[in-house]
Amino acid sequence: MHAEQRQRTRQRLERAGIRRAIFADLNSIKWLTGFNPPVQLGTNFFLGGPPLLWYVDGHFTLIVLDGHAGSVESFGQQPDCSLRTYEGYTIQKPITGGPNLAALLKEVIGARPGSGPIGVEERSFTVYLRETLAGIVERGAAWQPIDDWLVPLRMVKTAEEIAKLRDNFALSDLGHGVVRSLSLTGMREIDVWAEIHSAIQRHVGGRMPLGNDCVVGYRENNIGGWPGDLVIGETDSLIVDLSTLQHGYWSDSCATYYASKPGEEQARAHRMIEEALAFAISLARPGVLANEIDRQVRGFIEERGYPVYPHHTGHGVGVTGHEEPRIVPYNEVPLQAGMVILLEPGTYVPGRWGVRLEDALLITEEGAEVLTTHAKGM
Amino acid sequence: MHAEQRQRTRQRLERAGIRRAIFADLNSIKWLTGFNPPVQLGTNFFLGGPPLLWYVDGHFTLIVLDGHAGSVESFGQQPDCSLRTYEGYTIQKPITGGPNLAALLKEVIGARPGSGPIGVEERSFTVYLRETLAGIVERGAAWQPIDDWLVPLRMVKTAEEIAKLRDNFALSDLGHGVVRSLSLTGMREIDVWAEIHSAIQRHVGGRMPLGNDCVVGYRENNIGGWPGDLVIGETDSLIVDLSTLQHGYWSDSCATYYASKPGEEQARAHRMIEEALAFAISLARPGVLANEIDRQVRGFIEERGYPVYPHHTGHGVGVTGHEEPRIVPYNEVPLQAGMVILLEPGTYVPGRWGVRLEDALLITEEGAEVLTTHAKGM
Repeated sequence: MHAEQRQRTRQRLERAGIRRAIFADLNSIKWLTGFNPPVQLGTNFFLGGPPLLWYVDGHFTLIVLDGHAGSVESFGQQPDCSLRTYEGYTIQKPITGGPNLAALLKEVIGARPGSGPIGVEERSFTVYLRETLAGIVERGAAWQPIDDWLVPLRMVKTAEEIAKLRDNFALSDLGHGVVRSLSLTGMREIDVWAEIHSAIQRHVGGRMPLGNDCVVGYRENNIGGWPGDLVIGETDSLIVDLSTLQHGYWSDSCATYYASKPGEEQARAHRMIEEALAFAISLARPGVLANEIDRQVRGFIEERGYPVYPHHTGHGVGVTGHEEPRIVPYNEVPLQAGMVILLEPGTYVPGRWGVRLEDALLITEEGAEVLTTHAKGM
Repeated sequence: MHAEQRQRTRQRLERAGIRRAIFADLNSIKWLTGFNPPVQLGTNFFLGGPPLLWYVDGHFTLIVLDGHAGSVESFGQQPDCSLRTYEGYTIQKPITGGPNLAALLKEVIGARPGSGPIGVEERSFTVYLRETLAGIVERGAAWQPIDDWLVPLRMVKTAEEIAKLRDNFALSDLGHGVVRSLSLTGMREIDVWAEIHSAIQRHVGGRMPLGNDCVVGYRENNIGGWPGDLVIGETDSLIVDLSTLQHGYWSDSCATYYASKPGEEQARAHRMIEEALAFAISLARPGVLANEIDRQVRGFIEERGYPVYPHHTGHGVGVTGHEEPRIVPYNEVPLQAGMVILLEPGTYVPGRWGVRLEDALLITEEGAEVLTTHAKGM
C-alpha cells in the first residue's frame, strides 16, 4: 500500500543526499504509508505519542501506539516499510507512552543508525521528541528541515489514491441526495445536517466524520459555517457543502437548495453559477495555470454583474481537505494529469441569499473527468 | 473566565521562580483561558499554527489564528489575560500562518520580554516554534520543561468547571434516554448511534462531538469500540458509552440495554453490576485513595463469581475525557472535594454478552453527589 508514494519520496531524499529522516506530520505519514487512524474526537486519551515514520537508506518504519495498530488498514507486509508498536494504555502503572516511544525509537534506530544529516518535519516534531532523538543518534548529527518536501509530491495522485477519492466522493454525493429528498421548509440547518450525517453513517455501517457548511441564505455571513438552529423558510437558499473522510482521504462537494421556489433574483443567480461552474470545468486541463482558471471564473461572474465570491475558486484534495494546487489569484502552478481538484464558484448577498456549486475533477491527459455526480439544479 | 485556573498556575510558577512560560498543550490552554475551539475534523486546513499561551510576570496572552478568535467563548476583557490574533487563510498570497505567528510572538514578547528560565510544554511545543522563540528571547535563555505542572492543579474543579460539566452530563443523559426509547431488535449498532447523535445535535441546535462505545454483546471484544453494522437480536446486550464535548469539557456515562428480555444469566449479571456501582459510589468521599476504591470494587465482583473488568474502575474528567485521578490499581491519589470522577464497573463474557454501568460523581465534603441521571436498569 502506498508504495509509489514512498518511491517518489525515496528518490527525492536520495537526490538531496538525505539518508535518514523522521516524518512527524500525520498527513505525511498517512500519505506515505496508508496509515488511517480514526479522526480523534478527544475522548481517547490513552495516547502515548504521535505516529512517527523513520526513514533510513530506503527503508521506512512506521511507529505507532499499540491501540492504533488496527488502523494500519490492510498494511500487511511491505518490503520497504515495517510496522512497530509500543504500549499505551495500561491500568497497572502510570501511562508512559512518551518513554515507551523513546525506548522503541532507540531500538529501531540503533539497529540501523544511518549517517549524514537527519531530515525532520520541524513544524510537527516536538521539542521532547527531538531531544529524545538527539540522545539516540551520534553526537553532533545535523538536522535538516523537510516540512514542505512532500507538498509537490502529493499534488499528482496515484491510481490507489484516485480509487480512494472516487469511493469517497460517492459518499458526499449520497449526502446531497438526502438533502434533495427533504421537505426543507420549517427545518433548521442542524436538522438537515443530522439527516445527512445519519444517512451517510448508516450507509457506511460506521462512524464517518462530516464537514463543512450548512448555512441558510439570510445569515449575515452566508458563505459558510457550521449548521445552527436557524429555520429555513420556503424561499430561502441553503448552501450545503459536504466533506467525508474515508480511507484516509477527504471528499468535498457543494450545492445550493431551496425549500420550494426561489425568488426570481435567486433563480437567475443560481442559473448563472451553474454556467460559471460549467465554464470553470471547461478550462481544466493539463498545462493551464491555477490562477488563470481563477481569473477567468471570477471574470465570468463579474461580467454578468454579480458579486464575485471572496474565497478560492478551488483547491486540491487528498489526505488533507484543502491542499495544492490552490486555485487562487497568486498561484502559477500548472495543472497536471492526475491532480484531483475542486472548483466552487459562488455569489453571495449577505443577509439575503447565496449560491455555491462545487464539483470535483480528475485532471486527465485530455481535459478533466468530473468525479462528483450530485444534482446541482434548483 | 477561568481566572481561578490562572491564579493557581501563577502561584505555582511564582513558587518555582519561573517568571515566563509558554503553554502549547491545547488542553492546558483550554483550562487556563476557557478557549474552546471546535473539535478539528481535519477539513479546515486554513490553519497557520497551534494556539499558544505566553505568560510573563503574572500576565497571560492567548495567541490564536484569526479564524479561531470566535472560539474564545465570552472571553471578553480579562485583566490578566489578553487575546492576540494573526492572519491565517487568505487567497491573495500563500498561507503563511507560521511566519505570521512568529511575527506576532516577536511583538508580544518584545513588549515585555521578562527574565529567567522559560517554562515550556515540551511534549506539545514544536521544534519550529522553539527555534522561533529562541530567535526572539535573549541569547542563552534557559528552558525548563513544565509539561506535567497543570495535571495536579486540574484535578480539583472550580465552580465554573463544575457548572460546565453539569450542563454537559445532561446531554449524555439525553442520549441514553434516546436509546431507552428505541425498539432495538433488528437495529444495527450504527443505527442506534445515529439516533443518539441526531437527537443530541438537534437538542443543542448545533454540531456536537460524540464518543465512545456502542457494542453488541456477541462481539468477541465486547467491552468497547465504535458502532458498526452488527445487528442487535432481541436478547442481545448493547453497551452504550457516551461522551459529549460542551463548553470545552467532556461528559461520560455508560449503560447497558436489551431489546426485550435479557437471558437469566445476563439479567443476574446486570443486577450485580447495579449493586457494584452503588457500592462504588458509597466508597467515594474525600480522603479515600483511588486504588482503594479500585481494589474494593474489583473484590465485590470477584466475590460474586463474575469475571472482573480489565479496564479502569474510573477516572477524572474535564478538558480531557480521561484524566487524573485515575481509579486504577497503582494510584494512591486521595480523593478531594471538588474532583469530578467517573465510576464504571462491568463484567464481560467475550462473544456472548457484557454489562457496564457508569455514573459521574462530584466529590463533596460529605461524600459524593451523582451528576448523571440516566436510568441504568434493564
